[in-house]
Order: sequence, then structure tokens, then C-alpha cells
Amino acid sequence: MDFELNEDQVAFADMARAFAQNELEPHAGEWDQTAFFPVDVIRKAGELGFCALYTPESVGGLGLSRLDASIIFEQLSMGCTSTTAYLTIHNMVTWMVADFGKPEVIEQWGEKLASGELLGSYCLTEPNAGSDAASLKTSAKPDGDDFVLNGSKMFISGAGDTEILVVMARTGGPGPKGISAFAVDANTAGISYGRKEEKMGWNSQPTRMITFEDVRVPAANMLGNEGDGFKIAMKGLDGGRINIATCSIGTAQQAINKAREYMLERKQFGQRLADFQALQFRLADMVTELVAARQMVRLAATKLDSGHTDASAYCAMAKRFATDVGFKVCDEALQLYGGNGYIKEYPMERFVRDTRVHRILEGTNEVMRMIIARRVLAEGAAEL
Amino acid sequence: MDFELNEDQVAFADMARAFAQNELEPHAGEWDQTAFFPVDVIRKAGELGFCALYTPESVGGLGLSRLDASIIFEQLSMGCTSTTAYLTIHNMVTWMVADFGKPEVIEQWGEKLASGELLGSYCLTEPNAGSDAASLKTSAKPDGDDFVLNGSKMFISGAGDTEILVVMARTGGPGPKGISAFAVDANTAGISYGRKEEKMGWNSQPTRMITFEDVRVPAANMLGNEGDGFKIAMKGLDGGRINIATCSIGTAQQAINKAREYMLERKQFGQRLADFQALQFRLADMVTELVAARQMVRLAATKLDSGHTDASAYCAMAKRFATDVGFKVCDEALQLYGGNGYIKEYPMERFVRDTRVHRILEGTNEVMRMIIARRVLAEGAAEL
Amino acid sequence: MDFELNEDQVAFADMARAFAQNELEPHAGEWDQTAFFPVDVIRKAGELGFCALYTPESVGGLGLSRLDASIIFEQLSMGCTSTTAYLTIHNMVTWMVADFGKPEVIEQWGEKLASGELLGSYCLTEPNAGSDAASLKTSAKPDGDDFVLNGSKMFISGAGDTEILVVMARTGGPGPKGISAFAVDANTAGISYGRKEEKMGWNSQPTRMITFEDVRVPAANMLGNEGDGFKIAMKGLDGGRINIATCSIGTAQQAINKAREYMLERKQFGQRLADFQALQFRLADMVTELVAARQMVRLAATKLDSGHTDASAYCAMAKRFATDVGFKVCDEALQLYGGNGYIKEYPMERFVRDTRVHRILEGTNEVMRMIIARRVLAEGAAEL
Amino acid sequence: MDFELNEDQVAFADMARAFAQNELEPHAGEWDQTAFFPVDVIRKAGELGFCALYTPESVGGLGLSRLDASIIFEQLSMGCTSTTAYLTIHNMVTWMVADFGKPEVIEQWGEKLASGELLGSYCLTEPNAGSDAASLKTSAKPDGDDFVLNGSKMFISGAGDTEILVVMARTGGPGPKGISAFAVDANTAGISYGRKEEKMGWNSQPTRMITFEDVRVPAANMLGNEGDGFKIAMKGLDGGRINIATCSIGTAQQAINKAREYMLERKQFGQRLADFQALQFRLADMVTELVAARQMVRLAATKLDSGHTDASAYCAMAKRFATDVGFKVCDEALQLYGGNGYIKEYPMERFVRDTRVHRILEGTNEVMRMIIARRVLAEGAAEL
Repeated sequence: MDFELNEDQVAFADMARAFAQNELEPHAGEWDQTAFFPVDVIRKAGELGFCALYTPESVGGLGLSRLDASIIFEQLSMGCTSTTAYLTIHNMVTWMVADFGKPEVIEQWGEKLASGELLGSYCLTEPNAGSDAASLKTSAKPDGDDFVLNGSKMFISGAGDTEILVVMARTGGPGPKGISAFAVDANTAGISYGRKEEKMGWNSQPTRMITFEDVRVPAANMLGNEGDGFKIAMKGLDGGRINIATCSIGTAQQAINKAREYMLERKQFGQRLADFQALQFRLADMVTELVAARQMVRLAATKLDSGHTDASAYCAMAKRFATDVGFKVCDEALQLYGGNGYIKEYPMERFVRDTRVHRILEGTNEVMRMIIARRVLAEGAAEL
Repeated sequence: MDFELNEDQVAFADMARAFAQNELEPHAGEWDQTAFFPVDVIRKAGELGFCALYTPESVGGLGLSRLDASIIFEQLSMGCTSTTAYLTIHNMVTWMVADFGKPEVIEQWGEKLASGELLGSYCLTEPNAGSDAASLKTSAKPDGDDFVLNGSKMFISGAGDTEILVVMARTGGPGPKGISAFAVDANTAGISYGRKEEKMGWNSQPTRMITFEDVRVPAANMLGNEGDGFKIAMKGLDGGRINIATCSIGTAQQAINKAREYMLERKQFGQRLADFQALQFRLADMVTELVAARQMVRLAATKLDSGHTDASAYCAMAKRFATDVGFKVCDEALQLYGGNGYIKEYPMERFVRDTRVHRILEGTNEVMRMIIARRVLAEGAAEL
Repeated sequence: MDFELNEDQVAFADMARAFAQNELEPHAGEWDQTAFFPVDVIRKAGELGFCALYTPESVGGLGLSRLDASIIFEQLSMGCTSTTAYLTIHNMVTWMVADFGKPEVIEQWGEKLASGELLGSYCLTEPNAGSDAASLKTSAKPDGDDFVLNGSKMFISGAGDTEILVVMARTGGPGPKGISAFAVDANTAGISYGRKEEKMGWNSQPTRMITFEDVRVPAANMLGNEGDGFKIAMKGLDGGRINIATCSIGTAQQAINKAREYMLERKQFGQRLADFQALQFRLADMVTELVAARQMVRLAATKLDSGHTDASAYCAMAKRFATDVGFKVCDEALQLYGGNGYIKEYPMERFVRDTRVHRILEGTNEVMRMIIARRVLAEGAAEL
Repeated sequence: MDFELNEDQVAFADMARAFAQNELEPHAGEWDQTAFFPVDVIRKAGELGFCALYTPESVGGLGLSRLDASIIFEQLSMGCTSTTAYLTIHNMVTWMVADFGKPEVIEQWGEKLASGELLGSYCLTEPNAGSDAASLKTSAKPDGDDFVLNGSKMFISGAGDTEILVVMARTGGPGPKGISAFAVDANTAGISYGRKEEKMGWNSQPTRMITFEDVRVPAANMLGNEGDGFKIAMKGLDGGRINIATCSIGTAQQAINKAREYMLERKQFGQRLADFQALQFRLADMVTELVAARQMVRLAATKLDSGHTDASAYCAMAKRFATDVGFKVCDEALQLYGGNGYIKEYPMERFVRDTRVHRILEGTNEVMRMIIARRVLAEGAAEL
């Protein structure tokens, strides 16, 4: 057993931290308030390999493990939660194209996605299929060498500002086995984008509904085989859960760092906040829970990396625990700031708004509990 | 013992509910997004007496009890948390002028405040005196028939858009006994207003810093006697705590009502959310805690109305409990909405943002705990 | 609205408090450790009317309301949780016999139960029908002028040491409508008692299983009409929930009173526990939640007294909330005592053990949530 | 990074699990009820090396790491919390003698302690020095070749039934630097033992007060040098905190295993408990928090093993988190059992009673928060 980062991981973390401090943190507040999608900065991140962390080196990625990626994303999210969260989605899209795409699709888009020259969006959720992704209705019907897509997708990160969509659509009967995945040019005729959603947070990434009306997609753009869509989605989701959990712990760590500084400076009733025992105790609990959450995320990442039978259960546990802890820590850090925590001059309220959605995304924390319970109650289940 | 509303209270509640449904709820989302201060609607509320609920009838108020006022504010806050919260502050200003003002000041401003023709702001908090209000530094020095004010006030609700300020300033030595209260014309020379704060919520009321530079205020504008300021502030705070707690429970009730409807309609995995037992249990807990919070607020209001020795402790308990419960209920209602809870098309995320500040305002919930503990540990203290 | 006790209630509370301090508290620890059922002290309580608080005066009771009874039981439970809890069960039995018994049964047992000369046990729960009481299997078959009972009952308080049993048994088909209630002489042939259960707490009242083997009960001993049993049980349960919730808040108040004294005396690191801010905050929260819980209990009691449509929902809310808060407060009071909290020389650990079962009894807190949710989600349900 | 057990650890865990299932679990309930100290079984454990897990092999120990020891103790505590907890204390005593004892003391007692032939008690806590151990008053004054001990120690595990005491006593001025450690023959003249404490749990190990009245201890029995006592105690405490945290997670795992089985069997309202979604969610949370707690314990153990600067902070975090989670999980497992959880026929209520003291022992969880906060707020402190 070994809980220490290796040298490479430390080096990657340092690089990511520097990027976060120089390129993300100084602008994160403004991006939030102006709802600006920092495409140029994302491309700069791509130059460091951050657009394709676990994509194979053969397609221009860094070929890292999920654990490595989590260590890097954690640092990035300390600079900007929302931008990093988009970046994790783009990483997933890149990986899906590189891992499941046919050679010609990889040839066409792989390296450009890996470098951040092209940006991707992931299209799973539908208006009536949120937590229950397997009930999706967007259809993809074969017609000559193409599939024709009809339907609509909701809450799509990046939509309207990205070039490549990975779309889950129904090619067969109801249920998970009737779903296939496609890589789609975002500018194909028949694709229309809804208005930019006004959201509580995650404002540095645009979110739109996408409508597909007789959109023709070459059959070669199918990722994997027909009917593999849900399997690919689930594989993506396990990693996506680690990523979103990671963005929660990075943000929470940043909130603690800031709150600590504030406590050491700010005085009330003639002493520093840091001298109030009740606040010390709260800080202690924030740190403790954050350390626990980080371990959970890393534990789950290693299970995913090693292909452990129970990887999905560990990812669900990590996602549930770390996103709840992350939000709670940010909320308590805001409280330590008092009135200053509520105004946009300080980042605390943004941290709270940004991490709030992590308890909902990539499967709500209620769906996580369903997954965990199913595993624990399964026949013959050993202890986790 | 009697936990039922009397006929008058029911009638007032009905009137307030209708006002909230017709005049507040339809606009609350827009006011939030555009940071619009609905002065006209506040004046309309004034026509119903809602600008002076517990101001004496002789000065144009309704002369109601704190309990009555809480019942009314609860209904109003179901329509718009932020606007109602401002209204409670205006009510406090009106009451302070009417109760502690010299006859000429009452004559000049009393009825106009009571009707909402003039709006008021309450100026206590300073950049370095948040929770520790007694350490405030704004000075008021006698000079002829005037006092001359210097200093600055922070987080002032309505500032820049109101006509009357109630200002706490130091006329004597350090500590609470050196503070006096003044009613000040908001347009007096020497008063300047900072930029409108960008806040997490409470956006339908402007918040600004106010700077006083050699601002001359007639000595007759002093409320109460010299040195009474902190006492007046504290008296105001007890009521203010009930009011802010009330805005939390009204908002939370609205969140529950909406979540209940949503659960009865929205389907996932082939059944209504209302059919999932885990969600039922959560709803049950939300309702239970809200009912408990409402009782706490009403209990505290009656203690304040009857001048109970421990009224301040009860108000502190009510504020702490109801604002924590209110936020938690809104946060869980948001979660029940899933992704829809996170977008501004639905009011859930606004409820969360608006109620967040209630845990900070009018004395943070940490200060509440200090007040409660001091009372419980006091020598000879009987049980609460 | 009025949250104050009236004169009679104050007088009853004083009397109960004195009884608790003189007759219960000095012995409670010993009764717990020796598992002694203090029948004589219960009879003494009967002399004050405490065995028949809400039984009509015509049958020897005090004819008080449920609210009055709660005020009295709260004081008693400050002296001994477990004994008072039994007393509330005996009160229920007495009331059931007095309210639903035929004249000859009332004549025979009513006043003796009311005075505590005879003690009662309430027999509802069965080995396989805990939370799901309506599925009970004990049968009562008519045979001449008698009913013949067969089956077994579990977790019966007082069993083996009481004279009268109120037994719920099936006289008809499955489900709640097939159940009838009987008053049964505890010494009737065919009744056998299991061994005294070893329990975590509630040790001053014996708990045994009861087996009925061809037990003949005169038909006249049926309480109410055939098929009324479940309705009577439910009516009893609403009150029983208030009572058990009451025992939680009385115990928790006692725990707070003791913890407060301890904090004022005990020193660590050179200062009194009362001087540690983190402990002050905890005490403040304990008191706040207890005050909220007490209000919930009293609110529910008045709803039951007035026959409010939603009385059952309010009783369920009060039971859920007050028993959770009561346990939590006792647990935290134990913690404030440090190592001393863990040994039997101090009452803290007994408070924790005794209140633990309140979250299970009279319908588990999970069943409470089912009841509350059903009510909240019901068509046309108004706000609570 | 590597979260998997190595082969040796798996082998040790298997051995410990078998011992727990065969030698501890079948008797744990009875030992609890009869307050029996199973000395023979502890000696059997000694045969497997479990009395000296991290004592050097040269003194008869297994020479394992703290992490290895935690893995083993976790399994043992699944069989009997209280006995395993004593065993961890004995391990500490053995290690202190072996690591800090002079050669003649090691010669005399080392291997006998390591084998379990002699049992040890650890004497730090005093009536007025619980959390604040550095204020202890027991004195050790040099007199010829001896030290003479006077004073009293409280809550001493094993006291009265053990042969060797490790005693912390004051040889110098006030504060931590005036404390020295001694290995003392438990039967030395002048040592008297108080009555066996009646405790909430931990009943399979006797707890007594010890009084030292002019007890002569050879100077050679001093462990380490004069004034090293507190340093040794603190070093012991870090490990002790991991051990007690370990006993919490082992017990909680056992509680989950049992609750899972119960949920799969027990039916209410026509379906298995396992089919109720609200209970599934609770089980999911129990498992998730337990997995997090286990990681915290193992993380802290590796920090201690590697001599990490922040080892004490990690041990404090692990102790705080794991003992709180452990208790909570046991408490919720009890609830899942309903009424059966409250009776001694099932182990649930024992798990709750036994784990309750872990939140107090080895430094209360409040002291843990002091330690953590001090570290987090220290100048130049990096992130944990």
C-alpha cells in the first residue's frame, strides 16, 4: 500500500498548479460573471496535453491513467471549477473518439481533439431521460451509408461552441442495448442549438439544448459497434464520475486555502477568526472530510485503472461522497467569510454555485446510491 | 396554549398570499436576473400597510404584533425572498423612526415611510465591524445644532435608492454605550454611495457601501437619547432576526410546494419521483424540519411581543434554526429537481442563493450561538 | 397564539417535577442496573393521578388533555426515562379500557387501573409484525360466550408483572379491518410468559414475549366492536407517539441540565469546559434543537386534542423529530462528560441507552416518514 | 499509489479473521453480559503473534508495520470490539517496554509480554487530567536506586488483572517535559486497585482506578530517559489512535455485514427490508462512509510508518473521522434491526455501546480537532 504520489505525478501536479494559478484563477471570476467560454485558454491547456490526458499517445494524448488525470484535474479545478469541468468532458470525448472510433474518424479528428484545436461535446441527457439515461429517445435510423438522427439533447456542455459531438442515439429496441454512439460534426445540416441556458453556476461553459432534425451522419462515424452505445456511455460515466468528484475536491481545497488565510487576517471581537475555537473546530472538520474525499477519489481511480470488478461501485461511492463533501466545505468556507462570502468580489460564492451541480451531474447522487446499494445487496457480494 | 392563527391573522395571511402570488412571484425571477429593485411594487405593498406592520397606527402603521408581522412576511417571502427581506428592513427603519424619533422627525418622515412613499435603509455594519457591531467606528461629533458624521457603512440594503437612512454612529467612547442613532436624509451633502455590489443573491435589492464625509445631521434627528444607539440596534435586531428567519421559512415552504408538484409529475425509471421511497423520506424530513422551524419563529415572536426576559435568546435560537433549515430545505428541493434545479428557468436555484445570506445577516449564526450559550450558561439561568 | 403554560399546567408540572426528583431520580440508576420494576413507586404515582392522566374522571382519571399529559410526562421522564415510558403505556391501557370497554369491564378494572392498583400491558407487536402492525396473526375465534386466543406477542412492556393485557387479535380476514381489541386478565389459563428480555436500556420495565394457547376471553371483554381493533390501536398510537416523544425531550432536558453543571465545574487545560467556545456552540445547538422538539410535541398534542384532520401527521412528525433530537442531545451530553460519560456512576450513558429505543418504538422513525410523506403527497393536501 | 493489500497482509488478515470467527465472535456477547476478561483467549492470540504485532522480532514480536497491525486488528475487532481494543493496548505496552526499556527490563518482561504470558496496562489518564494529559500529577521521586510513586490513575484498562503497568509520572516540573515513563510490576507493594467500573460497554476488559502510595520502582525501570515520558506517550498515542479507529471500522464492517443479511431476510409490509429504497440508500451511505474511514486509517498508518512530519495530524484526522463514522454506522445498523436491534440476543446494541467510547478514548474527538486545527493554521503549513 502506498498513498504517496510518484515523481511523475508530482511533476504533472506542479505543472497543472502553475497553469491554474497563471491562466485560470486570475480570470475565473470574470468568466463566471460574463459567461465567457475561454476557448483560447483551453487550447493553451491542450498544448500541455491537458485536452487528452488518458487518450493514447498514438492519437496525440498523454496516455496517462485515470489516477494521473485526477491528480492533474484537481490542480486545475483549484483555478477554475467550471472551465476544468468542461475540460474533463472534452477529455472524455477525445478518449471516446480515439478509443472507439474507426480509423478514418480517428485520422480525421483524433489529434485535433487531443490538441484542443477542435473541441467536443458529449450528448447523452435528454429532456425526459436524466438520471434514467437508458430510456433515451433520440433515434438514429440507417439510410444508405448514413444514419439519420432525430431527437433532442439537453444540458449539453459546450454546445454551440464546439466542433465535435459524441451522440448517444437509439438504433434498436428500447432499453440500454438499443443504443449506439456516434461522432458527429457539430455543424452538420439539421442540427440546431437552443438558447444559452442561464445557470446557477458553471458559467464559463455554455450549455444548450441540441435538436437533431434528419441529421445525416456517415455510418463510419459510429463509435464501437451497433448497440455498444450504452456500454461506452457507462465506461465514460465511471471516469466522468471520478472527474467531477475531482473538480469538487480541488475547489474545496482552494476554498480551504482561502478560508485559512482569511481566518489568519480577519479580526472580530478583538481577535483573529483563527483564534475562535469554534471556527478552528469547523476548519478541522472541513480538512478532515476533504482528505477523506480525496482518498475516495484516488481509490476509485485506481480501481478503474486496474479494471476491478467493483470499479463502478467505487466510482459511485467516490462521486457521491466527494461531491457532497466538496459542496459542504465550500458552503462552510463561505460562512467563515461572513458577508464577504456573499459578494462576487471574493470567490467563495462562486465555489458554492459551481460545485452545487456536481451533486446532480454524471448521475445524481441518488442514482449513485442506487448503484452502490445494488452492489452491496447483490448475491455473493464480498465486502467492499 | 394555542397554536392556531386567529381570524385576523388568517385574513392578513390570505391578503399577503394573494399579493405575493399576483405582484411578486411572477416577477421575482426577472428581478433577480436583472438586479431590478421593484420600488413601485414595494409602494403597492405599502398601500396594504406592509411597509409599517408594527409601526403604531398613529404614525400610519398597522400597529400589529411581531407575530402578526411574521405571519404576513412569511406569505410575502413565498413570492419573492429578496424583495420581502428588503421590506422587513424598511419596516424596521419605519418603526425606529416612529418609535424613537423626536416629534418633528416623525412629523416629517413617519407617515411617508409608513406608506412606502419614502424608503429607508438601515446602516449598522462597517467594513471592520460585521458580527462585532459594537466596535463600529463611524463618528458623529456635535457641532452647533448639528452632528457631523464621518465614516463608512457596508452591505447597506437599498442604499442609493432610498430616501432615509438610520445610521448608528459613535458619539462617545468605545464600546456599545458610545453609540447613538440618527435618522438621516439620504441625499445630504457629503454622503456618497459605492458601486452596486454584485451578490450571490438578494438581487432585487441594491446593496452599496455608504461613505459619510463631514455629513451634517440636525441634532433633532437623533433617535432616542445620546448613547441609546446600540440599545435601539439590539431591539431592532431581535425583530430583524425573526423577520429574516421568517423569510427563510416562507421561501422553504414555497420550495416544498414546488418540489411536491414536481415529484407528482416528473417521471424517471418509469415511475413518478413521488413513488420513490427514498425521495418520499426526504420530503417528509423537509416538511418536518420546516414545521419545527416555523414554530420556533412564532415562539420567539411571542416572546418578543410579551417582553419576555429571554426574548433575545429565543430570537437567536429561531434565527439560527430557521435560517439553517430554510437553506437546507431549498437545497434539497433543488436536488429533487435534478438538472432543472440548476437552471434559472425554475426558481429552485434562486431560493438557494437568496436564503444563503440569511445564515450570515442580522448576526451570523455563529453569533447566534454565542448569544444562546451565554444565556444557557448564565448564573441562575432557568431552563429555556 | 399562545405558547405559555396555563396555571393548572404549571401546577401539574411542579407536582410532577417534585415527584421525579424525590421518587424517581434517586433510584433510576439502580433500577437500571438491577432491572428492577418499581411497582410501588408507580402506585405512588397513581395516587397523584399519574396512572390515568387522560382517562375520564368518571373512571377515576384526571380527565386531562394530551397536551397536559405531555407536560406532566416530560417532568417525570427527567427523573426516570424508562419508568415514565412504562407509565405512559399503562396510561394508554387504562384509557383504552375506560374509553372502549363495556360497562362491566370498566366496572371491574377501570378504577383499579386508574389508581395503579392493577397495572396494564399493551400487546400489539408480534415477531413478524413490527412496523407492519396490520399484518398481525394472533387469532381470536368466537366460541360460545368467549373468544379463544392463539398466537404470540413480542416486546411487551410490563409483561409478566402486570394484571391486565390489552390484546390486538384477528377476528376477521387479513388486513387492518379484521382486527379486534380485548381486555384480558393476565393470569388467564393458557397465557405463558417468555424469559425477561435483556435489553440495551429501558431496564426498569420488564419486557417479555407472551404466548396465547387457547386462552378463553369473555366476549364482553372486547373493546369497541368487532373489527375496531386497528382503529383503536391507531388512536392509541397517535397518543403513544406523543408520549414517547415526550420522554425523549424530558430526558434530553435533564441531560442538558447535568451537562451544563458539569461544564461549569470541570476544568481541562486550565479552564472550565464552559469556557471552551466549541463546547459552548455545541451546548447552544443542543438547547435550540430541544426547544424546537418540545414545540413540535406540544403542537402535535394540541392537534390530537382538537381532533385535527392532520393530527396523525403531526404526531408522526413530532415523534420522528423529538426522538431523533432527544437521542442526539443525550449522546452529545455524554460526550461533554468525556470518560465520565461512559461509566454508570453518571447518568449520561443511561440516558443514551434509554432514549435509543424511542426511535424504534410506537412505529419506527422510518414508518413515521412513510406516514408524513403519504400525507404531504396526498391529493388536495394543504400545507402543514 | 497502491490501495491493495500485499500477499502477506492478505494472509495475516485471513488468519485474524479466522481467529475472530472461531475464538471471539461466539463468545463476545456473553463476555459483555458477564463482564468476563478472556485472558486465555488473549494468550491464544499471543500464540499467533497478536500480542506484539509491531514489537521487534528480537523481543518476540512480529516486527510488523502500523499498517499491517491495523489490517489485523480490523479483522479481530469484527469478532469482539472490546477484547480487541484491550489487545491493542497490550500491544502498545509491549512495544513501549521493548522499544524504550533498558536491556534488563526487556530481558525480564519483553518476551513474556510479547507472548501474552504477562499482560500489560497503560496508565496515563488521571481523575483531573483526561484530555489534558500533560497536566498529570502522579509523582515519581528519586530515592536511592528507586523512584517512589504517589498518585492515582483512572480508567485503566485491564487494571487488577494484568501483571505489568506502564506508568506516566511526574519526575520534574509542571508541563509535558517533567514527565517520565516507568514499567512497573503490577503487584508492587503500595499499589491498590479500585472497584471494577460499571461501564456502558467495553465490558470484556476490566477498568479500574489505580492508587500509588509510596510505590518503589527501580530506577532501571524507567523507559527512555528522564523527561521522555510525554514524548513516549505521544508516540504511543498516535499509534493508539490508529488502533482505536481500526476497532471502530472493524466493528462497523461487522454491523454492515449483519445488517445486510438481515435486510435480505426480514420482511415487513410484504417485502424484504432490502427492497425498501429508503433503506437501500441508507445502507449505501453506511458502506460509503465506512470505506472512506478505512482509507483514512490506512493513510494515517502509512504516515506513521514513514515518519511523516504530519503523522500526528493524520492520526488525529483518522481517529476523529473513523470513530464518528464507526459509531454512526453501528447506530444505523441497530435501527435497521428495529426492535431486535435493542435486545441482547443480537449484537447490534453491543456494537453501539462498545464503539461509543472510541469517540472519547485516546484523546477525545474534540482534542483531535484541536490537534488538526493547530496543524492547519500553523505558519508555513502546506496542504494536507
